[in-house]
Amino acid sequence: MSSLRPTLDFLLYDWLQAETLTQRERFADHSRETFDAVLETCERIAREKYAPFNRTVDTDEPRFDGEKVILPQATHDAHKAYAESGMLSAAQDHDERGMQLPYTIEAAADGFFGLASVSIGSALLTKGNANLLLVHGTQTQKAVFARNEFAGRFSGTMCLSEPQAGSSLSDIATRAVPDGDDFESDPLGPRYRLKGHKMWISAGEHELTENIVHLVLAKIPGPDGKLIPGTRGISLFIVPKKMVDTQGRLTGVRNDVALAGLNHKLGWRGTTNTLLNFGEGRFPVDGQAGAVGYLVGKPHEGLRCMFHMMNEARIGVGTAAVVLGLAGYYASLEYARNRPQGRPVGLRPNGPVTGNDASVVGKAPAQPQVRIIEHADVKRMLLAQKSYCEGALALELYCARLVDEQRTGEPAAADEARLLLEVLTPIAKSWPSEWCLEANSLAIQVHGGYGYTRDFPVEQYWRDNRLNMIHEGTHGIQAADLLGRKVLMEGGKGLQLLAGRINGTIERAIRQPELAEYANALGQALEQVGSATKAAWATGNPRDALANAVPYMQAFGHTVLAWIWLDVSLVAAAMPESAARDGRLRATRYFFHYELPRIGAWLRVVSSRDPTCADMPEEAF
Amino acid sequence: MSSLRPTLDFLLYDWLQAETLTQRERFADHSRETFDAVLETCERIAREKYAPFNRTVDTDEPRFDGEKVILPQATHDAHKAYAESGMLSAAQDHDERGMQLPYTIEAAADGFFGLASVSIGSALLTKGNANLLLVHGTQTQKAVFARNEFAGRFSGTMCLSEPQAGSSLSDIATRAVPDGDDFESDPLGPRYRLKGHKMWISAGEHELTENIVHLVLAKIPGPDGKLIPGTRGISLFIVPKKMVDTQGRLTGVRNDVALAGLNHKLGWRGTTNTLLNFGEGRFPVDGQAGAVGYLVGKPHEGLRCMFHMMNEARIGVGTAAVVLGLAGYYASLEYARNRPQGRPVGLRPNGPVTGNDASVVGKAPAQPQVRIIEHADVKRMLLAQKSYCEGALALELYCARLVDEQRTGEPAAADEARLLLEVLTPIAKSWPSEWCLEANSLAIQVHGGYGYTRDFPVEQYWRDNRLNMIHEGTHGIQAADLLGRKVLMEGGKGLQLLAGRINGTIERAIRQPELAEYANALGQALEQVGSATKAAWATGNPRDALANAVPYMQAFGHTVLAWIWLDVSLVAAAMPESAARDGRLRATRYFFHYELPRIGAWLRVVSSRDPTCADMPEEAF
Repeated sequence: MSSLRPTLDFLLYDWLQAETLTQRERFADHSRETFDAVLETCERIAREKYAPFNRTVDTDEPRFDGEKVILPQATHDAHKAYAESGMLSAAQDHDERGMQLPYTIEAAADGFFGLASVSIGSALLTKGNANLLLVHGTQTQKAVFARNEFAGRFSGTMCLSEPQAGSSLSDIATRAVPDGDDFESDPLGPRYRLKGHKMWISAGEHELTENIVHLVLAKIPGPDGKLIPGTRGISLFIVPKKMVDTQGRLTGVRNDVALAGLNHKLGWRGTTNTLLNFGEGRFPVDGQAGAVGYLVGKPHEGLRCMFHMMNEARIGVGTAAVVLGLAGYYASLEYARNRPQGRPVGLRPNGPVTGNDASVVGKAPAQPQVRIIEHADVKRMLLAQKSYCEGALALELYCARLVDEQRTGEPAAADEARLLLEVLTPIAKSWPSEWCLEANSLAIQVHGGYGYTRDFPVEQYWRDNRLNMIHEGTHGIQAADLLGRKVLMEGGKGLQLLAGRINGTIERAIRQPELAEYANALGQALEQVGSATKAAWATGNPRDALANAVPYMQAFGHTVLAWIWLDVSLVAAAMPESAARDGRLRATRYFFHYELPRIGAWLRVVSSRDPTCADMPEEAF
Repeated sequence: MSSLRPTLDFLLYDWLQAETLTQRERFADHSRETFDAVLETCERIAREKYAPFNRTVDTDEPRFDGEKVILPQATHDAHKAYAESGMLSAAQDHDERGMQLPYTIEAAADGFFGLASVSIGSALLTKGNANLLLVHGTQTQKAVFARNEFAGRFSGTMCLSEPQAGSSLSDIATRAVPDGDDFESDPLGPRYRLKGHKMWISAGEHELTENIVHLVLAKIPGPDGKLIPGTRGISLFIVPKKMVDTQGRLTGVRNDVALAGLNHKLGWRGTTNTLLNFGEGRFPVDGQAGAVGYLVGKPHEGLRCMFHMMNEARIGVGTAAVVLGLAGYYASLEYARNRPQGRPVGLRPNGPVTGNDASVVGKAPAQPQVRIIEHADVKRMLLAQKSYCEGALALELYCARLVDEQRTGEPAAADEARLLLEVLTPIAKSWPSEWCLEANSLAIQVHGGYGYTRDFPVEQYWRDNRLNMIHEGTHGIQAADLLGRKVLMEGGKGLQLLAGRINGTIERAIRQPELAEYANALGQALEQVGSATKAAWATGNPRDALANAVPYMQAFGHTVLAWIWLDVSLVAAAMPESAARDGRLRATRYFFHYELPRIGAWLRVVSSRDPTCADMPEEAF
């Protein structure tokens, strides 16, 4: 029976040497045993409280009864079990009643929940919200909001998008005006009144927690009453659903935030997704319309505060895509091992076949059927899934390890980790959202007609996973971020650092006969990516460079994944013979033979700054 | 406003010269006007009776009340309108009250229904069923069953798969035994009793028509009572849901066919998909269990009869995939033309940008937002959809034209058409099912978060389209058919014929400066496919050759589509300047620059007979 745990153990301990983290002061109380205990607890809760209800939350979509949003009881139970496990504050200081757990282990452990039921979720937004407040909030804001989020009493949201401005944050129109002359003297922070509409707000309304802490981007008008154009005018506010006092107690007053609608989605239905109206006067506070919000950090620095959490949020989305991919891989592997159908092709004694039915070409019908895992094309579909999903899992954990390095490493190493993360995050977010979705499609295909029915779980994984190319920055935005900013920033140092790491792997692999072929191929791929990056920017005009940003990101991503697989193989190859070791080396071979060669077609248009798409006149569509 | 009709007009009349069909005796009563009238009628019925209810049939899934299957009223109305239009018998002889319409026009006209609501459907199975009976049935069988199907009184199914044997027809276990000593004297055909289970039967139970004519594959036991292994033991039977007399009147007796369950599907929900039990004794006939079935053709030749209709069924599936792709293309184009968001990238006067938000890199926030169709990456996603879907539409119509040639051409041309169809059908079925599905995913992506909601139609198109890689022979089966049979049959003559056609296009294009680049690229691609075909079979062992049959089919398909686009461009280039002409030439450029280069990676593993997948040991997954 395939499962996530052995793969995690190999990647965490054999490959990433996660145990060495315990030598650091922050993690000194930890050991392999405490790490394992966390993994085991999460695996158990996910198995007991999440997995059995994955179809339930898909079928019993959130609904609004006019007053409350109704979620299945299973969702309440799962959230309760998660909060009680202490995972909400796993990474926090001991002083904050946290575990001081490395992010690497937290991210790995959270994978079990996504694998079991991604849309019940593991409170990524709540953690991100509270973490932001720990960095940018006042002592009181931390005590009142963040701590109650870590404790599971409150949950959190991130309110960025608006109906008229999805990915384009510079156009947000939610206004925040000072609430009275003494607005600066509120103990919870400078007090404003907000008016506006926020779209795509996940977990924006529910009864899972006592309160919901909205973190809201809004603009404070200038002296002329006008909003400052662009992202520089944006500030960040805490807007609680229900008003609280300085002890975090509910005051009994509802804030002026109203649910305007639930989005009815293709998948990921266990989480509400909402349109919220702020300050429309539905729930006046002190007799006045306007949602009460407390400024976080300084005015006009809201976006900087919000983006502070972006890398982790994007690694979180990438990991969700990965575990959905793995869920489909395990399901289709199980199916393929048990479903008898057809016979393997082979030479027939009487030569070429001329029958009418392709399914019997070169087969011996009197033989019993074989299980479909014995067919080469089914193996191809399974091996592709394995190489996509286990490779992407390794990448996510590598990035999580960089987060720990950034936080707890020596200054030089921490800075390197920061820069590497800048470059890798768009890949960690986009690559699994594209290729682990493809893995889910292959999982359906392995099941044949059964995969197209709701009697098997794979169609839901595919629907759920389709979200990941959209939220937390679409594919197009990740690509513009990568080619338009990340590979250029600080004089291209991030890209050089990554190239250095890749070359390090190549140098070690080239000395091993069974890996040398891959090392050479990876070296060539890296060179191609480097040349394409230069060629894309040869005119210095972003319009030329970014016209093919997505194909660039696809090629970049495949190169990164090839590197990850080669690096994983170096460790695997050094281990004793086993089926798992063999599987990793074969997945690497698959990736190098079947996947890496794809980059040629993607880089071709990047290198030539192909204008075919950018030049397309609207009327010619 | 983009729509299907102008594209059809160009492909049918300018490119395929469909009007010349009227010079043939069979189509002599037709003219461009009668063809146009058919297209207009179908477009109108589809617009009025199908399109408004596409979401209805998705939401109000078929359900069984214990006696009857309930479908939305809209489905009844749509079927009635379709039957009354005469399209069910459009291709039939005048003597049969048909229109003697070319299949090319029929296939094009049916596209409107798929575009409007693919799962309400255009009775492809009923037509295929009745057409089969016209070829293989007795005079009485034709009169009683086929004619009532063409008239819309009865509908038809194809019952091939069984729960234990999905794609593997050699393993079907439904038994047919002679019904009494006088079984050969029934006027409706040799009378048998059938017992067995049939799975994935589309339209297997409903109340849309007075009766349902099941065409069922079953095995007649040998003298020892055993079933003959393999496909050679299979015979074909007519099994009506309700018993009829020789005048086609219902006798009031229900046949022993019972609904065992409705499949609950990811999409394509307007059509019931059923598990049927034959002969379990639920509805005994003459006091006896066993579904009454009338033999069609000779015993043991059932599969040959069934496969007679396979090419058209597969072109039908390919066309469904195409029009679903087009539906998403039109929807996302419309959305992109109207949705304002963000600003185009460009050089900023103050040089490189270092902002934190990728969405504002190099943009001027004080400028008004532009419509998203002005962004290069949105254009890329639209142009990809256009090139996939309009290219695939051209391929389907080309194949439909070959069907007409096979039926009404001079003997040599008819035989060429037959062979070309053999080779092209796996592509006509598989290519759109893969790439027009990808188009639907891009249509979602263009919509951003809105595309992930059920408030927009694109998520349904994507779900509906996922079926097409599965039914009528999975991707794997199409690939084995192509590389294992079609490119080999008759000494490779089909492949040579296709290469001849492709070379003909290349020779004409190479003389045109604006197309010469593509002609060269296509020539190289064709050579690569040819070499890969030889290399795949170099050992003569099907296990080696077919291990990478799917990548082979993908490369073959992209090469065929590149040829189709180049051939279309030859005609477009000769026409007066227009936005549509420009669009076709640009879609061709897109296909040659962005798509055709992908074949290198696919053919690499084919040419090396890469054993990575086939050799994967089960325990290494």
